[in-house]
Amino acid sequence: MPNLLTIFLATRNNIVIQINPDRLLTNLNTLRGFGATGTGVVRTAFSKSDMESRRWLVDQMSTAGMHASIDGAGNVIGQAPNCDQALLIGSHSDTQPTGGWLDGAMGVIYGLEIATAYQESGLDSGPGIDVVSWMDEEGAYFSCLGSTSFAGAFTDQQFQNVTTVQGGRLRDVLTDVGLAHTPRVTNDTGRYLGYLEAHIEQGPYLDSTDKHIGVVTAIVGIRDFTITCYGTQNHAGTTPMNLRKDAGLAAIHIAHDLDELLAGTARDSTVWTFGNMTFNPGAISIISGQASLALQVRDADEAILDSMTSVVHEFVGNRNRTSNVRVTCQESEDWVAAVSMNAQMQKHISDAAQKLAPGKWMMMQSGAGHDAQVIAPIIPSGMLFVPSIDGVSHDFNEDTSPDHIILGCQVLAAAADVVLKL
Amino acid sequence: MPNLLTIFLATRNNIVIQINPDRLLTNLNTLRGFGATGTGVVRTAFSKSDMESRRWLVDQMSTAGMHASIDGAGNVIGQAPNCDQALLIGSHSDTQPTGGWLDGAMGVIYGLEIATAYQESGLDSGPGIDVVSWMDEEGAYFSCLGSTSFAGAFTDQQFQNVTTVQGGRLRDVLTDVGLAHTPRVTNDTGRYLGYLEAHIEQGPYLDSTDKHIGVVTAIVGIRDFTITCYGTQNHAGTTPMNLRKDAGLAAIHIAHDLDELLAGTARDSTVWTFGNMTFNPGAISIISGQASLALQVRDADEAILDSMTSVVHEFVGNRNRTSNVRVTCQESEDWVAAVSMNAQMQKHISDAAQKLAPGKWMMMQSGAGHDAQVIAPIIPSGMLFVPSIDGVSHDFNEDTSPDHIILGCQVLAAAADVVLKL
Repeated sequence: MPNLLTIFLATRNNIVIQINPDRLLTNLNTLRGFGATGTGVVRTAFSKSDMESRRWLVDQMSTAGMHASIDGAGNVIGQAPNCDQALLIGSHSDTQPTGGWLDGAMGVIYGLEIATAYQESGLDSGPGIDVVSWMDEEGAYFSCLGSTSFAGAFTDQQFQNVTTVQGGRLRDVLTDVGLAHTPRVTNDTGRYLGYLEAHIEQGPYLDSTDKHIGVVTAIVGIRDFTITCYGTQNHAGTTPMNLRKDAGLAAIHIAHDLDELLAGTARDSTVWTFGNMTFNPGAISIISGQASLALQVRDADEAILDSMTSVVHEFVGNRNRTSNVRVTCQESEDWVAAVSMNAQMQKHISDAAQKLAPGKWMMMQSGAGHDAQVIAPIIPSGMLFVPSIDGVSHDFNEDTSPDHIILGCQVLAAAADVVLKL
Repeated sequence: MPNLLTIFLATRNNIVIQINPDRLLTNLNTLRGFGATGTGVVRTAFSKSDMESRRWLVDQMSTAGMHASIDGAGNVIGQAPNCDQALLIGSHSDTQPTGGWLDGAMGVIYGLEIATAYQESGLDSGPGIDVVSWMDEEGAYFSCLGSTSFAGAFTDQQFQNVTTVQGGRLRDVLTDVGLAHTPRVTNDTGRYLGYLEAHIEQGPYLDSTDKHIGVVTAIVGIRDFTITCYGTQNHAGTTPMNLRKDAGLAAIHIAHDLDELLAGTARDSTVWTFGNMTFNPGAISIISGQASLALQVRDADEAILDSMTSVVHEFVGNRNRTSNVRVTCQESEDWVAAVSMNAQMQKHISDAAQKLAPGKWMMMQSGAGHDAQVIAPIIPSGMLFVPSIDGVSHDFNEDTSPDHIILGCQVLAAAADVVLKL
């Protein structure tokens, strides 16, 4: 890595919002303390440590002069005072059940730091900077709950009645944390000039190519398929090969052939995964009567996803015409659409990256989902990635070098300069 | 099917031991009553219904003039009185947890019927016919326990200390059924001229080719393999295809390629089965860190089994040299060796089949394991199969036509004629 601090200091005179690296890292480490477990963090949405960290965030934002509170969805929202327009910066501070210390949290503290530094600049008389920590991006109860609420997807009644992934109703979760009667904040049309979210990459692209900044072009869409083979369960010793209807073997051949077909349709950035395969009854001396295969395809281009989907359905159709094992393919109904980041926001972030890390940044898609996916349709949105060491995330070992953390925040601050026309 | 009864009546005058079809079917149906469940039978080894049925068998053998008892392994053994030499006929009367009514039971009742008919013939002054129902062929506690005990594989202490597949010691099972202090019967060298076992085929060969009798040439050997792939668990969205170490995808490709390689090494009667495949963690959006594959190969020729085994190990070795996913192949230590049936016994059974069902019988291997596999190394052994309707076994729907049941018993009786030199 080149000496990032040298670059940082050499260029900061051109930037209005100058972040404070020490304060940034101190706040980030303080947030890490809520739910800290070994090198990782256990701070799932609405848990005791999550709610404590959100109250701490409200305090920090208030100290920085913002009007801050926790809304009825659990979002921490800090609004710049005395302004009708603002740039919104943030991410989520809840974690996976055994999460890393940066995932989401870093983007929230970036917002806090940039808003604080903006006030210190003395040029904060125009549009302001609002900061947000969305609730439950990781889906302990409902994936991207807070940003979805903010985007106006629920009436109050629908929100209370949301069925959580744990089976109960959301109202009970809200009651437990004292938010059942707190108003939710939804998008105040006209206030927001844009939304910026920083995040660790959660993949190996930046780390493996020695880039410091990723400018997100789009967040991938996701198509999930369940392919099921129906054969005839039988004795593995007494049933000759030519009389078998072996569901397991059919699933093996289908996965193999589909893998090759999908490779022929994919582009470089497309990913597809056979994440699970189950044989029934699954015993070494029994020919499987049924076998299932889980397939997921991700791409930032809906047209590619459509092509991949066609390949799957066409293959299964052909297979059914030629095989004595019946095959079905069920496509998950709650698929996620690919979302492009706003072109202007991409340009602001890439201009800032080129200024602060010339040649050491790249345009890239996000293979993982983020709150920006929910916010992009209602506010011009941009995302910035910093490298994940070895591409690790959702794991106690997740980490990013302090230099990269500092650089990422300053790049986002420089992009904010431009959005705010400073 | 031709009129089997016509053939039967037309040829029975040439046969000394003439079975009684009504008595055969009546006894078979009475035995079915112990543990009868719908059209099937639940009579697992050492269960209440199994022990009741064994006491009933002792009564039937005693009534037929034999010296009968349950030995310390749970085997029911009925010995012809006043003779030093005998032909042993039987099978096992325990069932699978949800078993069919004929599997094993039919071969035991064949023994009872043939021994009874032998006495009725008035020519039973030479060698006798002993009848056996082996304990736990199906392996509720230990596969082929009774025949293995009879073959002399255990000292008394070893036998008591056998670890059962359910985890405990055999002595506790024996104590529960009152057999802990009962002596075991082991092979009395010199007594047995031969061992004959009849069984349903448990496969579709006879039924699908309209044959009435199968003469078993050999019982297949079994080789079990566990192939395990070790990759790196990762995010299915953020990990590009070229940087993955996907254990699940490796297992899919290995199974596919091995299937093709094994097909090139097998002969017509070889069977191989991928009975199970598991992905870890097995979630649709996670690249598997580990995947396992169960492979079983069966053939009656040890040389073919050796070739198939070499193909597996060579393939895994090559794969390890070319792939970034490490693969191991573990061969089960308790593999079953292929066992040929005695040539003279094969001839006696096939001669009898040709007499009673001319052109309607075939030589065939047994793809399933049987007590005869254990007995063949110590007593000249032969096996006869009758058709399984649709090849179904180990299932409540298992069945065989009464004509086939009767014909099979008469063929075995005619073979016994020859062994006993009547």
